[in-house]
This record gives sequence, structure tokens and C-alpha cells, in this order.
Amino acid sequence: MPVGTQATVKAMTPEELRGLGAQIILGNTYHLHVRPGEKLISRLGGLHHFMAWDRPILTDSGGFQVFSLAKLRKITEQGVHFQNHLDGTPTFIGPETSMEIQRDLGSDIVMLFDECPPHPCSYEDASKSLDLTIRWAHRCRAWWDAQPEENRPLLFGIVQGSSHADLREKSARALVEIGFDGYAVGGVSVGEPEYEMFRAIENAVPFLPQDSPRYAMGLGTPPQIIEMIARGVDMFDCVLPTRLARNGTAFTAAGTLNLKNAPFAEDPSPIELGCECHACRHFSRAYLRHLVKAEEILGLRLISIHNLHFYLNLTRQARAHIIQGTFQQFRESFVSNYKAHRETSAA
Amino acid sequence: MPVGTQATVKAMTPEELRGLGAQIILGNTYHLHVRPGEKLISRLGGLHHFMAWDRPILTDSGGFQVFSLAKLRKITEQGVHFQNHLDGTPTFIGPETSMEIQRDLGSDIVMLFDECPPHPCSYEDASKSLDLTIRWAHRCRAWWDAQPEENRPLLFGIVQGSSHADLREKSARALVEIGFDGYAVGGVSVGEPEYEMFRAIENAVPFLPQDSPRYAMGLGTPPQIIEMIARGVDMFDCVLPTRLARNGTAFTAAGTLNLKNAPFAEDPSPIELGCECHACRHFSRAYLRHLVKAEEILGLRLISIHNLHFYLNLTRQARAHIIQGTFQQFRESFVSNYKAHRETSAA
Repeated sequence: MPVGTQATVKAMTPEELRGLGAQIILGNTYHLHVRPGEKLISRLGGLHHFMAWDRPILTDSGGFQVFSLAKLRKITEQGVHFQNHLDGTPTFIGPETSMEIQRDLGSDIVMLFDECPPHPCSYEDASKSLDLTIRWAHRCRAWWDAQPEENRPLLFGIVQGSSHADLREKSARALVEIGFDGYAVGGVSVGEPEYEMFRAIENAVPFLPQDSPRYAMGLGTPPQIIEMIARGVDMFDCVLPTRLARNGTAFTAAGTLNLKNAPFAEDPSPIELGCECHACRHFSRAYLRHLVKAEEILGLRLISIHNLHFYLNLTRQARAHIIQGTFQQFRESFVSNYKAHRETSAA
Repeated sequence: MPVGTQATVKAMTPEELRGLGAQIILGNTYHLHVRPGEKLISRLGGLHHFMAWDRPILTDSGGFQVFSLAKLRKITEQGVHFQNHLDGTPTFIGPETSMEIQRDLGSDIVMLFDECPPHPCSYEDASKSLDLTIRWAHRCRAWWDAQPEENRPLLFGIVQGSSHADLREKSARALVEIGFDGYAVGGVSVGEPEYEMFRAIENAVPFLPQDSPRYAMGLGTPPQIIEMIARGVDMFDCVLPTRLARNGTAFTAAGTLNLKNAPFAEDPSPIELGCECHACRHFSRAYLRHLVKAEEILGLRLISIHNLHFYLNLTRQARAHIIQGTFQQFRESFVSNYKAHRETSAA
């Protein structure tokens, strides 16, 4: 899922996203609540109409941003009091508020509202936090049950439990008992080392139903995505393709390229040979480097197109290899090619 | 002509420009000479190939930027010594150098290298400056004559003479005597009041051949463009459509809209009713306002598309009215509608 934080996948039109084959995008409940507000979006016909995106939208619950961006938080049983990061307006979001905001946005997949503990987190703190998240999960489900059937979006649970294996298992089992349309693993990619991130996934996924979508939130590098797929994950959202593009960095099967670098100044080849994206079909690394150096918007636009194509194509390839029964070979070859290059360029 | 200062019309792909019906764009000799350099562009196949634009390109001579952007200038009979505005590198551009840079870029229409006097400019200074520009015009033409016939781009003269009627006439007559493929009026829109700008055009155009393209450089607002067309001008380049878009300002037949303004917060209508551009077909003023307030690149992209469509459509309409013999009515109605609104919004 390309990330459309503020009702736009950065620098991209919906038409371009459709052209890249994006099936679904993510919207940010916290950001849209703060600006322009879900009530305004609702009066204008909902998020799909507002941003002219006619395919599915998943909204996060706002939990992650409340705990990472907002100031002066006070967590109670009811929810979280905070001041927003833009103008400090005092705001409250609890499980029901989060559900209502996501309903007003017109989301197709609604995420439950969870507490996101910091990393690292002691067993005791993580356990207390998880219990609150489980109680909130019950309230989200109760809110959903009270909605008229025809208006119900899909509702996904979120596994928490920090780096503690038995808490991850407990969290997953509790969610499955409540029953959701899909299951995410949250509290990953929050500053922990990569092996811990893999372990958090390994400690949760086996307890989630195979026939429900399983979603790793906020990940990751291309090899991480492949490794997560190998561990049974089906869905991802990631800001890296557009964020790194704005910094002049492009993804290739051999690793990332920083297009600001001098060796690309006269390089007539595309970002990646054989790539079918608009940027690679029409423009050279030399031209892209010029645009990035000159701080021209077209530079980050073209690299965003390439990077989103790269990520969307990566998951398309993984799916095809799974169907063909060749995923294991694909995984090994992709991960070793990508890493080999990173070591070379670091040398 | 949309302006492509640094080998890109800001925030636009060549494909989008073609979709808007742009027939020709302008490139900036000074900027491209400073970065990435015409030799690099030439080795990569020329400016058309470098930026993937397969329609005509007109390049200015660099004169205007040398006199407005560069530092520590020393003007001699040979040309201008200066330090570029990016890193202060000492550089020289004279008539022949300018021609060679434009040739290396692969320009289709090359502008002669002129001195651009500041505004206001005494009669004596303007006269001395004009004499130098005329001597440089001879040298540009001589350089052009010495080129192999199959490699010759079109070469345009530039009328100077500041606000002095007889100098404008003298300049125009001298250029016509030398003989060029087209004639521009330069030294306009350099800080003078609008009536002086019109007078500068009126003092030059009658002395330029009717069957050659006549080009007013660096203009203007939509009513100014219409007024220039009424005075016999055929070509324009203007940064306003893309520059104002980056500031959240959109053009309409009734005047400009600052989409940051609060009244647009819930406005479901497009920038301009009936407009056929991509932005107006898909997005509301409310959405565009949100994007501009949130500093999202898609906002300036969509307004750039609308504004370029507005300008290109304006000259298409003017052409159609000239052919139909209804230009005078079109001019009066367009200019009065546009101005009426500006007075209203200022009240």
C-alpha cells in the first residue's frame, strides 16, 4: 500500500497510482483528523471522493501518530488526551472516536485503536499496555457490532506485545478470539534491530488465521518485505518509496542508488535497465541527477514513480513466485543480490 | 511558451505538456550553462533528448540572466565577464559564446545576445547600450552565417531601447536590416509601469515585418497577453502559470484565486467551472486548498496543470477569434471580465 498520509500519496496523482497498479492505499487518521478534519471530508463526500481515489483505502487508527507525533499525552482507560503537533489544539482520541473518524472518512479497512509502547519496553510495561490494547480491541469490535450492517467497513486487529514472545502470542490469541476481518502486527520498525523485528513477526503470525489477511505495519526495505512474505505476511504499507525519492534515492534490484552522486552526472542509462516505469522509459540517470541537484520537483516525481513501481512490482513478483512454487529461490536470489550490492557500495 | 528554466517546466513531465497542447517551450541558456553545462547536455544528445521533449525549444541568449542574476559584471565590447549566482565561478559570455551554448543545447530558435539595461535608464545610457546590442546583433548574425547551412537553427533578433520611442524604432529598423527569422521585444516587464510596457511594444512592433513572428519576452498577465496580441505580438513566454501555482494561486477568466483563502475550505466546485483540465475534471477547490495548506506537492502540480492549460487555451482562443474576425469583441469582453473581478476582490 502506497502511503497517502494527508489525502495524497506524496507528489502522485491517483491516475498515476492506478497506472502503477496500486490496488489500495493507506490514509492517516491522525493527520486527516488534525487537518482538514474528518467532518469536512465527510461533508465533501468522503476521502475517496475528496482525493479522487476510487479503489480501496485502509486507514490506520491514529494510535501510532498520537504516540509518536503529538505532544503532552495523557493516557486513561477511556483513551488518549493530547495536543496536536500542528497548533497544539487539545484533542481526545479513544477507541470509539478513532472508529468514528475512520467511518467519517469512509475507510474500507478500519484499524483498531491501540496503545503503541516505546522501544525498548520492559515486560511489565508491555504487559500492562497490551491489556489496555485488548480492552480497547473489545470496545472497537463492540462499536463495529453496533453499526448498521450495510455500513460496516472491514475491521482489522493489531497485535502488540513489544519484544516479548509470550505477549505477542497472547495478543494474537486474544484478537482471534474477538474476531476481526484481518490481523496486523504493530509495534514493529519502532527503532528495534532487524532481528527483533523479524522475531516479533515470527512470534505473532503463527497464531493468526491463514485465511485472513496478515499485515505488517510500517515496513520495510525490499529484502525485509520479502523476508516478511516468507514468514506469512500478506500486506504492507511503507513510506520509503516516496520518502527516499524526495531525497534523490532510487531502489534497484541491486540496492539503492543515491542519484545525487557524481558518477551519475553523465550516465545515459535509466535508473534500472529493463524497468518498465515512466521514469526509466524516458529519462537517464544523468537527467535525474541534474533535476535532483537543481532541486526541481520533476526529479522527486520521477523517482517516486520509479520507487513505487519497484515496490508494487516486488510484491507482484513475490505473488507470482508463490503461485508458481518458486518463491524460495526468488527470495534467496533477491535478498542476496540486494545485500551484495549494499556491501559493495559501503566498501 | 511554458518556461523550462533548468531543463524542466517546473513540476511538469513532457507528457503532461504535450497533453496540454504546448507546441514549444523555452529553455534558459544562462541556467543550463551554469548547471549542468551545455557540453554535458550535448554529449548526452542535446536538450531535447536530455529532457525527453520532442517538440521545438527556443532558448534565450542568457543576456537577461547575466544582467539580473549574476554578480560582479564587467561589460566590454567583447561581452560580459561575471560570476555565476550559484558558486561564483568567473565566466564570460559574449555574442559568439551565447550562440555556441545555444547550438550545443540543440536549440531550434536561438536568441541573439543583447545588453539588458536596467529600468529606468537615461536616454544617453539607453542609446549607448543599444549601439552595443546592435554591434552584437551583427556578430550573432555573422556567427550564424558561418555555420554549415544544415545546422542552422532559426535566429531571432531582440529590440531594446528602454522607454525611449526613437531608440525602439532605431533598434527595430537596425535588426530588420540585418535580417532575422523572427523579432522579439526585450527590456519589457523589467519593473516599468504597465502603460510604459505597452508603449515599448507599440514603439517597436510597427517596424517589424508582419510576416515574421513577433515575440514579447517575459510577459505577462492574461489581459496583458491579450493586449499584446491586439498590438501584433505572436509569441510569449511567461513564468506566471507555474510560479503562481507554487504559491497556491490559480488563474480563471474572472481573475486569480488564492486557493489558500478560507472561503475555499469547503468549496466543492473546481477551480473554474467548465474547464477541461485534469485538475478541474477531478478535484475540488476544497481539496486543492487542503493540499496547498498542507504543503503537498500534488497541490502545486495540479494548479500548475490548470494554469498552463489556462494560458495555452487563452492563446488558442485568441487565435480562433482572429481567424473568425471576432478578436476585438473577445478582447474587450475578456479584459473587462478579468479586471472587474480584480477590483471586487481588492474591495
